[in-house]
Amino acid sequence: MTISMYSTAIPVFKQLLTGLRDVLAKAESHATEKKIDANAFLQARLFPDMFALTRQVQIAADFAKSVSSRLAGIEVPAYDDNEQTFAELQTRIEKTLAFISELAPAQFDGSENLEIVLRPGTPKEKKLTGQVYLLQYGLPQFMFHVTTAYNILRHNGVEIGKRDFMGAY
Amino acid sequence: MTISMYSTAIPVFKQLLTGLRDVLAKAESHATEKKIDANAFLQARLFPDMFALTRQVQIAADFAKSVSSRLAGIEVPAYDDNEQTFAELQTRIEKTLAFISELAPAQFDGSENLEIVLRPGTPKEKKLTGQVYLLQYGLPQFMFHVTTAYNILRHNGVEIGKRDFMGAY
Repeated sequence: MTISMYSTAIPVFKQLLTGLRDVLAKAESHATEKKIDANAFLQARLFPDMFALTRQVQIAADFAKSVSSRLAGIEVPAYDDNEQTFAELQTRIEKTLAFISELAPAQFDGSENLEIVLRPGTPKEKKLTGQVYLLQYGLPQFMFHVTTAYNILRHNGVEIGKRDFMGAY
Repeated sequence: MTISMYSTAIPVFKQLLTGLRDVLAKAESHATEKKIDANAFLQARLFPDMFALTRQVQIAADFAKSVSSRLAGIEVPAYDDNEQTFAELQTRIEKTLAFISELAPAQFDGSENLEIVLRPGTPKEKKLTGQVYLLQYGLPQFMFHVTTAYNILRHNGVEIGKRDFMGAY
């Protein structure tokens, strides 16, 4: 009568990261075809104090990686945030997909009851159960950045649709 | 060692709809203070063939209502899409919050194994289990529209942050 933490996390991250990879591939093709400098997309943002596309992709990938790692009880691997091209962003996503694909369902057993501490040692420290951390923090944060990456490209005229965002389900 | 369908759906919808309600309240205050016509926000969109803010809010609320109803095995209540003001959008969200708040956890028991048919009778018909319907269709769709509503307002200079999007968790 219930669902597992693994199936609530990993298939969702994989689906939407794969969608994001395809969205970025369409953006790169669009830039090439129209002879647009790729940086016009990579550095685009929806408002001056929002993050640009490249950073949105990095953060989305980071949430997939860090939420999965913390629930599985393993160290979060550190990736440099040095991507400057579409190809490098694709590599970042591929690396993240490969990492989370290697996690086994059994590693998530009991993770709903883990104590997760956000922003430890700061005035904004917050303790959550693993379940709340995944459902009410990790997945919304992850989807926020995947959607915002999509919206930046959509706003700049790349021909993508919600189907591309959604990926295969 | 597992989590319930109810806790995977209802608290998440409530949290982000409450965040969206607060985001819209800030947008309305911003319009009033700056003497901006509310329609400049309500009819704003990120690209000509994307939905405007009002429609994004309606769709987000609809996903919360319809996904919850289908998993609980009850008829999806029909709401008119006739909102034209911030106050009416707030009412739409309140009505949706009240509806999903009345659903009981027991109504979701076993819903992970339901057969859900998307777009029935069309060439795009697709059958999903209740679990996949919630995690890999309903929640991403819902969060996509909540985020896009936020991004439209952010793009138009309303002073909101991701904390407003996230709501209380």
